[in-house]
Formats: sequence, structure tokens, C-alpha cells
Amino acid sequence: MQGRMNTLGVAFRPHVKTTKCIDVVRAQIAAGARGITVSTLKEAEAFFAAGVDDILYAVSMVPSKLPRALALRRQGCNLKLVVDNPTAASAIAAFGDQHGETFEVWIEVDTDGHRSGITPEQDTLLEVGRILHDNGVEVGGVMTHAGSSYELDTPEALAALAEQERAGCVRAAQRLREAGIACPAVSVGSTPTALAATQLEGVTEVRAGVYVLFDLVMHNVGVCALDDIALSVLATVIGHQADKGWAILDAGWMAMSRDRGTSKQSHDFAYGQPCLLNGTALRGYVVSGANQEHGILSPTADNADAHDDVTQRFPIGMKLRILPNHACATGAQFPEYYAVAPDGNSVEWRRFHGW
Amino acid sequence: MQGRMNTLGVAFRPHVKTTKCIDVVRAQIAAGARGITVSTLKEAEAFFAAGVDDILYAVSMVPSKLPRALALRRQGCNLKLVVDNPTAASAIAAFGDQHGETFEVWIEVDTDGHRSGITPEQDTLLEVGRILHDNGVEVGGVMTHAGSSYELDTPEALAALAEQERAGCVRAAQRLREAGIACPAVSVGSTPTALAATQLEGVTEVRAGVYVLFDLVMHNVGVCALDDIALSVLATVIGHQADKGWAILDAGWMAMSRDRGTSKQSHDFAYGQPCLLNGTALRGYVVSGANQEHGILSPTADNADAHDDVTQRFPIGMKLRILPNHACATGAQFPEYYAVAPDGNSVEWRRFHGW
Repeated sequence: MQGRMNTLGVAFRPHVKTTKCIDVVRAQIAAGARGITVSTLKEAEAFFAAGVDDILYAVSMVPSKLPRALALRRQGCNLKLVVDNPTAASAIAAFGDQHGETFEVWIEVDTDGHRSGITPEQDTLLEVGRILHDNGVEVGGVMTHAGSSYELDTPEALAALAEQERAGCVRAAQRLREAGIACPAVSVGSTPTALAATQLEGVTEVRAGVYVLFDLVMHNVGVCALDDIALSVLATVIGHQADKGWAILDAGWMAMSRDRGTSKQSHDFAYGQPCLLNGTALRGYVVSGANQEHGILSPTADNADAHDDVTQRFPIGMKLRILPNHACATGAQFPEYYAVAPDGNSVEWRRFHGW
Repeated sequence: MQGRMNTLGVAFRPHVKTTKCIDVVRAQIAAGARGITVSTLKEAEAFFAAGVDDILYAVSMVPSKLPRALALRRQGCNLKLVVDNPTAASAIAAFGDQHGETFEVWIEVDTDGHRSGITPEQDTLLEVGRILHDNGVEVGGVMTHAGSSYELDTPEALAALAEQERAGCVRAAQRLREAGIACPAVSVGSTPTALAATQLEGVTEVRAGVYVLFDLVMHNVGVCALDDIALSVLATVIGHQADKGWAILDAGWMAMSRDRGTSKQSHDFAYGQPCLLNGTALRGYVVSGANQEHGILSPTADNADAHDDVTQRFPIGMKLRILPNHACATGAQFPEYYAVAPDGNSVEWRRFHGW
């Protein structure tokens, strides 16, 4: 990803909500990332404490969270806030004025209608820009996230959405600049659009998160191979129901998460793709069901002949790796990753959770 | 629940996987619980360290976990293991012999075909019983969990399944006893069957977990009112998409979990039921979508008239409580609960996660 962004001539600001892991983020920064994106103030606090000081908090600010943001700014964190409405913009301006703090705010732009943000041509865009600018808040830029890219699965559609995301965000910046608001940063991104973009004229930086591990949803979107998925859950066969063609695993939804992001995609991986320990995917098998600490491994519909062999093929005690639907959700179930070196040795990398 | 079990004349062994919280479990024990049920060895270790010594690890044992179980036993924990197959039974016997430890094992019985266990009339039941008994392992009992009760929603069907669960488990114990294996404990339960059972002849104890908090799935099953749900996620309105009739919340799937357990029930609550801070459910609204840290609150289909009022009704900064689909899954997303007293003051109760 970093190489691609270098080629496209834009900065890269990884979204660390995927891993919430200092070790991973240090590697991303070592590879060339400039600043990070966070989804919670806890992430901002944890990564600032670990030495990262350029942080975009990419969820709309509300008044009740301003004291925590102020505390970070006062400690020297270059924390940038996001808004998409006049109420929050006014509250930030008033709070900054009250506390003598010049906040930096980026305006969220809606380029695909999937969630938050102001569309590029809406009057509200300039209204919010003026509230900030005229009341001593630094308008640091505009940002957008075309999250509907997760619903696509062809290179053409992804490239078209990447261009829509770029063009919409650049247009919003242009309108603000024409209104006399500097708006230096133009920030776009999602893993699929970042990988599909062929030119990023007018964009200053890209954000993406899940690319750093990849998962089955991204595989279905078409931006990674199964072999590119870095995250798996180590599971053990703990039982069988021979007449049903089931092997029971000790990885249920607590380990895999309840994310069923592939359920509406071209290939439904249910609760995950089983693999051998060496990473070889066991095509024709799936984790078809999950309770809290039990998973059910069974043949897929097109592999019904394997029904009678499940007990033999997956003996009690056998260990498997399960590739997850969604790396952000599965990782969140664990206090740590085990990072595996090519020689098979592993090291524990902590991650944090909570808000 | 404890009062009900007292009336039915059986012991109660709560499943602590729901909360993983010492404070809650101490309250359950103070109310009369005898021992606890756990779903991971980490739970066993954490609760033993907190002073609970009668612990049933209710997931089939595999050889690779025996050293950790042995360590608990050696520290004085009365840890009971579960098996449902000859391979694991033999491994426990051999490991116990090797280390001079008399393990206590309960045999898992399948009374509803939903997951693990040996059906009461299967030959394997006596085979496993004999492997254990003849090789110096204490057969402490039989246990079953009619988890398919979650799929029911009438008192009649629940009562019938409760009786099926009871009768099947008692029958398994009877067969073992007739084969000369003592099998003192007969343990059954799930929250719905525990609450539906009208007599538990032959049963010595009941297990249930989610009853301690309840959730929307249990509400749909018919065993609690909305007002009985003790767990909610505190969320703040952070934005709107007025033309779509959306209020955007700062509670997404990271807060609510991806559990969509109500999706196949009589009433689909999507990602949760919004309530006022005082707990009043806002019928006609639902958290209809979720990204990692964003939730979308919108009118339900039968409340489409409210579409235009969402921005007014749910202003920026408004706080709501969201009732979750599944208390076990939602709780797992958080490092702590805030236990709220009637006077509105709250105290932090830690929970743990991981394995």
C-alpha cells in the first residue's frame, strides 16, 4: 500500500482501528506512513503515548468529547477533529474560544451516500466551513471515506468509485478554497478504493486500514488473494458429530467475531475459511456455524461427498487456522496477536480495546 | 433464576461466560449459586483466583489443554472437565495416570442435536464412561445444553424442550449407573429451558448464563420483557443524514458487536433497540446499520412518518441507551461494565477477555 501511494504521489495515513497495535503501526510508519487515522479517542491517547503525534480522529466530534480532545492537544498531540454539521462546528469554536485553544478541524465529505458527511455541492459545506474559519478554528482539510466500496467486486466498479471519491473530495476542497478557506488537506480512502485508484490529482493523502491484514471480505471484493490474508485464528478440533459431517472446533464467535460480512458477497465464507497450519486453504470446507466457544466445521454444499470423511480427516486435537471474514472485528476479540516469523517462531503483539 | 431453581429443588451453577465479571459472579454466589460454569480455561483461572473453586469447564477437553487443567487442579481448584468422545477420554485417563492426578470428568449429552455431545442411547456413551471409569478417572456426572431453545418462541415449545433436555440427560445418567458408573451429577440448562421447566426430576443442577443480563434475543424467545434487559450501550448522536431519515450514533458494531441474533426471530432488532436514558424504549426506531464506530438510527418500516422528524427528535449530542441483541457478545466488546444504582450513580465493574 505504501509503495502504491508513493507511486501515486500522495501521503499515506493508515487507519489504526484495524489492529490497535503499536507494533503494527510502528511498522507502517517505518514503511513511510505520515500520521495515523483513529476511530476513538482511546486510540488517539494510546498511539500518542507511544510517540505518534499526527492523528486524525475520523469520527464526527460532539461537545461531550471536547475535554478529552483538548487534553491531547495540550500535551502536544497534533490531533485533528472531524465535523459534518453546524452544531458540532459551533461547539468546537465556542469550546476552543473558552479554553484558548485553536483546534484543527477537517470537514467530512459524503462521496457515496453510505454514512456520514456533507455532499460536495451542499450549502452546509460552506456554512460549516465559515463557522469554523470565522471563529478561529483551523480548517485543516476535507476528508471522505467511500465505504460502499466494500459492496463492489469488479475492478471497473472499484476504479469508478475511487474516481468518484477523489473527484467529490477535491470538489469540496475547491468550493471551500473559493470561499476563502484554505483547506490544505484533501484526504480520501478505503482499502478497495485506495488499491483501485489510478490517479489522485488534487488529493494530498489516502487513508486505509484493513489492507494491513486483509480478510475474506476483501478477498471477495477482489483486492487480495486468500494467500494475502495475514490474520488467522488458531483452532483445535475438539469433537465430531459424524452423522452430520461436522467437526467441532474450539473457535466460535468469541474467536471469529459475529461478523458475517461475506454473507451478501459472491462467496459466503460463513464464519471462516479453514486452512492447514501451513496456510493451505481447505477448499470445500467452511466454519458453517458458531456458538460462543464452539465452531462447526463442515463440507460446503459442493463438497457433500466429503461428509463421511470429516471424522477421519479432522481428528480430535488437529490444529487448523481459520481465515476471518473481517480482520478488524476478529482482531478485536483478542488481547494480542501472535506475529509469526518465517522460521515459525512467534512473538506476542498486544492490542488494546475499549473507548 | 435462583429463586426458581430453589423452588424446583435443584442447585444452580451460573455460566459466567456472559459477563466474565467477578462482581456479577459474587452476586450470583451470594444469591445461592453453587459453583460456576466456564467456557474457557482463562475464565476458570480468573474465577479461581477470585475465590471460586467449584468450576465446570463446559467445552470438550482436548489433550493440548490438559497441562493447564492440571495446574488448576494442583492449586486446589475443583475443576471438572467435559468430554464427548473416546479419544479425549483416553487422553485424560493417560495424562492423569502419568501425572498422578485423578481428574473429574462429566460426559456431555446431546439432547437436541444442535452441537456437541453423545445422544442418550448411543453406545459411545457407555464406551466413554468405561474408558474413564476403568482408568481411574472420576465420572462426576452428565451435562447437556439444549441450545436450540434460542430458536423457539412459545411457552409450549420451550416447556417441551425443557422436558426433552431433562429426560435425555437423566436417561444418560441412568444408563451409566446401570453399567456400574456412579455419575452423581445430572446437569442441564440454557436460559430459556431453565425458565420453562416445570419439574426437574432426576436433575441435580441447572446451568444458565444470559439470564443475568437478558437481551433482545431472549425477549424474542419470550423469557423476558424489554424492561428486564439490564445491559445497554450508552451512545451519543453525532450527526444526521436528514434526507435519509438517519441519526448517526457513535455506537457501531465495535460497541454493539456484530451479533444479529434477532435477524431470524419474530422481530428483527437489527443492531439494537434505542431507548431514552431512563430506559424507555423508543418503539418505531432501530439501529438499522453499523460500521466500526458509527451506528445508523432510523425509523422502522412501520414508522415511516417519522422520517422527517429524525433530526429534530435526535439532536446532536443527545444520549441514548441501546439494548443489544446478545448480552454475551456486546459485553465482550468492553473492558468494563458501569453498574448503575437506583440513584443514578455508577460503579465500574471490570470484565476480562481473551483465552
